[in-house]
Amino acid sequence: MSKPIPVGISARHVHVTREHLDILFGKGYQLTVKKDLSQPGQFASEEQVDLVTEKGAFKKVRILGPERKQTQVEIALTDALKLGIKPPVRDSGDVKGSPGLTIVGPKGEIKLAEGVIAACRHIHMTPADAAEYGVKDKDIVKARCDGERGLIFDNVLIRVSDKFKLECHLDTDEGNAAKIGTGGTIELIK
Amino acid sequence: MSKPIPVGISARHVHVTREHLDILFGKGYQLTVKKDLSQPGQFASEEQVDLVTEKGAFKKVRILGPERKQTQVEIALTDALKLGIKPPVRDSGDVKGSPGLTIVGPKGEIKLAEGVIAACRHIHMTPADAAEYGVKDKDIVKARCDGERGLIFDNVLIRVSDKFKLECHLDTDEGNAAKIGTGGTIELIK
Repeated sequence: MSKPIPVGISARHVHVTREHLDILFGKGYQLTVKKDLSQPGQFASEEQVDLVTEKGAFKKVRILGPERKQTQVEIALTDALKLGIKPPVRDSGDVKGSPGLTIVGPKGEIKLAEGVIAACRHIHMTPADAAEYGVKDKDIVKARCDGERGLIFDNVLIRVSDKFKLECHLDTDEGNAAKIGTGGTIELIK
Repeated sequence: MSKPIPVGISARHVHVTREHLDILFGKGYQLTVKKDLSQPGQFASEEQVDLVTEKGAFKKVRILGPERKQTQVEIALTDALKLGIKPPVRDSGDVKGSPGLTIVGPKGEIKLAEGVIAACRHIHMTPADAAEYGVKDKDIVKARCDGERGLIFDNVLIRVSDKFKLECHLDTDEGNAAKIGTGGTIELIK
């Protein structure tokens, strides 16, 4: 059995560009760090926005910083049903052809034409971790969760960078289906 | 590979006793069949209620008929987070020690002391099906879902009765984690 990998559950969240932050919060506005995330340099900000479609809305959805080159909304498929949209399951950054929605901030709103995805489950790791597990960037592996709702996830993407920290990211649907939360661990299976 | 088993996704719903139906909808009120469910005799009713806790609420949650000996609320763990309660993962009917909530109907409300569970994933089948799959009532098996979010569920309960029809019941978290919907199929693995 390989070394257990810590799990991080991603709730719905938003990444924003500098330009969109100007519109949502005002020209030159800077995100405030509320809490550092496990991946180095990434943080949950104090800032929250509303996500709105014709069918529904989520209030107070957190922006994760720092700013990115592309605005992206990551939601669970349970969330998608409430909003009446069908986001594809994608790796972060791959938003082509995905649905949009309206992001509402205190100073303005963005009608996003595309950018809403359900994140593809993935494992962040360093090159040293990759060597230890015998995998490489973009490999697809399985991940086993034990317990009352134990299961084995197929199609788990490996992402390797010396900027990463070892962690398996699942969304809330996946975490709840497996009854595993942040702080739990999974086992990587090749 | 064994014969594929149809999947049914259960959204949050409520089962009610005769006594509670009297309180929620009025003395002697009869549930109206909106749609027959796949399990013989079971139906989605036209009647809906609100589920309310101190932390949140869900409006218009459907009652499934017919009436039962015990009122029971089945929700996904994603729903539970919104309501601020922690339902156990249980087989239907096993509600001892589970949390409660308030059920609000058009004529009255019920303050349920216990009865809220997250359903344990399970496969309904007839004795003939059980013989074909080589399993028996209360066995625990695995279920494989293929596709983009393919996975293998562990701890899937077998329920055998000549009143059942072959079907694997998952909740919305499980369906979304596997990206499988009603009409999809799973493979039983022993």
